[in-house]
Amino acid sequence: MKKTISIALVAVAAASLFADAPAAKHPLISKAREAGLAPIPSSLTALYKLVDNPKNPITDAKVALGKKLYFDPRLSKSGLISCNTCHNLATGGVDGVPAAIGHRWTANPHHLNSPTVYNAVFMSRQFWDGRSPDLEDQAQGPMQAAPEMAITKTMAVERIASMPAYKKMFKDAYGSDEITFKKIADTIGNFERTLVTPSPFDKFLEGDAEALTAPQKEGLKTFIDKGCVSCHTGVGIGGSMQPFPVVKPYKYADIGDFKGDKNGMVKVPTLRNVVETAPYFHNGAVWSLSEAIKIMGETQLGMTLSDKEVASIRTFLTSLTGEKPKVVYPVLPPVTEKTPRPVAK
Amino acid sequence: MKKTISIALVAVAAASLFADAPAAKHPLISKAREAGLAPIPSSLTALYKLVDNPKNPITDAKVALGKKLYFDPRLSKSGLISCNTCHNLATGGVDGVPAAIGHRWTANPHHLNSPTVYNAVFMSRQFWDGRSPDLEDQAQGPMQAAPEMAITKTMAVERIASMPAYKKMFKDAYGSDEITFKKIADTIGNFERTLVTPSPFDKFLEGDAEALTAPQKEGLKTFIDKGCVSCHTGVGIGGSMQPFPVVKPYKYADIGDFKGDKNGMVKVPTLRNVVETAPYFHNGAVWSLSEAIKIMGETQLGMTLSDKEVASIRTFLTSLTGEKPKVVYPVLPPVTEKTPRPVAK
Repeated sequence: MKKTISIALVAVAAASLFADAPAAKHPLISKAREAGLAPIPSSLTALYKLVDNPKNPITDAKVALGKKLYFDPRLSKSGLISCNTCHNLATGGVDGVPAAIGHRWTANPHHLNSPTVYNAVFMSRQFWDGRSPDLEDQAQGPMQAAPEMAITKTMAVERIASMPAYKKMFKDAYGSDEITFKKIADTIGNFERTLVTPSPFDKFLEGDAEALTAPQKEGLKTFIDKGCVSCHTGVGIGGSMQPFPVVKPYKYADIGDFKGDKNGMVKVPTLRNVVETAPYFHNGAVWSLSEAIKIMGETQLGMTLSDKEVASIRTFLTSLTGEKPKVVYPVLPPVTEKTPRPVAK
Repeated sequence: MKKTISIALVAVAAASLFADAPAAKHPLISKAREAGLAPIPSSLTALYKLVDNPKNPITDAKVALGKKLYFDPRLSKSGLISCNTCHNLATGGVDGVPAAIGHRWTANPHHLNSPTVYNAVFMSRQFWDGRSPDLEDQAQGPMQAAPEMAITKTMAVERIASMPAYKKMFKDAYGSDEITFKKIADTIGNFERTLVTPSPFDKFLEGDAEALTAPQKEGLKTFIDKGCVSCHTGVGIGGSMQPFPVVKPYKYADIGDFKGDKNGMVKVPTLRNVVETAPYFHNGAVWSLSEAIKIMGETQLGMTLSDKEVASIRTFLTSLTGEKPKVVYPVLPPVTEKTPRPVAK
């Protein structure tokens, strides 16, 4: 099958198809780069390499299909919950509530907060305990989880396969209209790989020293000097597994029972679009970004950040609010009389 | 304020800005017109007159704002349910479940099915009991209803007014950034007025005799001759208040306690996009469109339609599947620290 480059990515990379990143001349750009911070590339070819998955290569047909499935509530037992319910592209890629709420209004049993789907492709692992290696694997989880979409693999496949328009889209994407649960998740993962949000900070890292305001640059210096960058780094500005807490106990550790992976490691959330993704932390206990920054100083870095330092870091974080990809709301294939019916119970 | 013509409607009316409807030459076109069936006009000016509300004139600024509010889950107490949850533009403007499910997974207490928002502007009354005169008035109901979005007027206004980007949009739409619950509902109604779906049947009614297939024309004849058109008529192909049942009891009357308005009248649902909006009837008791047609023959017309007649009418109904307006999924204003928090309980 011919591998095509997604239209969505072309839009992200905009006019700079063959742009080389200009040499980083501003000392703060060099400092940020040396600290490990990296941009979402404006070069389409570089971006493509960064987000593609050799095991599940991006194609336009798979992205188009994955977009429909991402928004399709028939992939839940009740017929009411889609991937987009908890990872809402309208609201920063999250649901804006402390703990995710799913099938039959069940809150996440560990009181875990829904992480944003935007830029999730840049995370080295998926889920708060990092148990999943990539987006394709991750997408299989919430569909089947009883407190989330609560569907079985069999019912998911039967629902989708009952709609002729979906059969045709699978044929276009895979050369065969055979539908499997893995293919459903793979195409959703493929779509999610296109959900990246370039921001002023990316322009800055690529050499445009004027892309950040003076207070944002001040905040970036503080962010690096205080050591935030030791975990919040890379293109994802987060995304690796790290110990939490490091120095002092987390103030709201009594909410939920999450303790990280078997080694107590927790996935570092991305800071991209962070001003849009309250509430914060794995258990969504904190609504104020300033408070979240202060807590991070204490638990992870063992320091009390002054109000001025907190405000300065917060100002830097506003430069991470990115341009969201334009998503035309899909018109989904209608159910047929063969489609297994929704089950609300 | 200058009244502008919505871009959405321009797209619907397409290239036929000054098109006069050709004289209806085909005898079946004349017959359908005489029976009261009427098209969604391809003329932009005619369409504009038909969908506009003099009390709440359509403007691009109000439609753009109303679109955001339509998709905004922060207009529900929980922060999780938007207008689009039950009237999903991806799935025929409905939720595809028998009885609507809202706040805390509560089913509609009367077991009422969510009607489609597409072409709802053509209904003479809103709600199954017709208690609301128009879309602006209707939109106030589900937001406040305890088993639906469950928000108070005060909380809705406080949530929206806490987000500066919304303040600006209200200023653009109304010349003042004062936000009221009525304005919120009015702009949602304004957006909904643009959700019309021209179909092959409209082309046919406007004079293109080839827009329907021969079996669809046969079905249309049956539809008229059997008397379906006595209720399913007008541009909405439904939308007036009528007695139900007329001749024989409704087979599934024991599901829910809905008895119509104080005179036992029930709003006739539109048949536009009906193949996409199962399950059927006010209580969503019937999944098969063919069964629904058969029941209608019995309860309303006092006749047993043959399987052939049922199939023929069903074939006609496929010509009512219309082109959905292109809706770019909105990026909503982010919450601020002043935004009243979601309440899941």
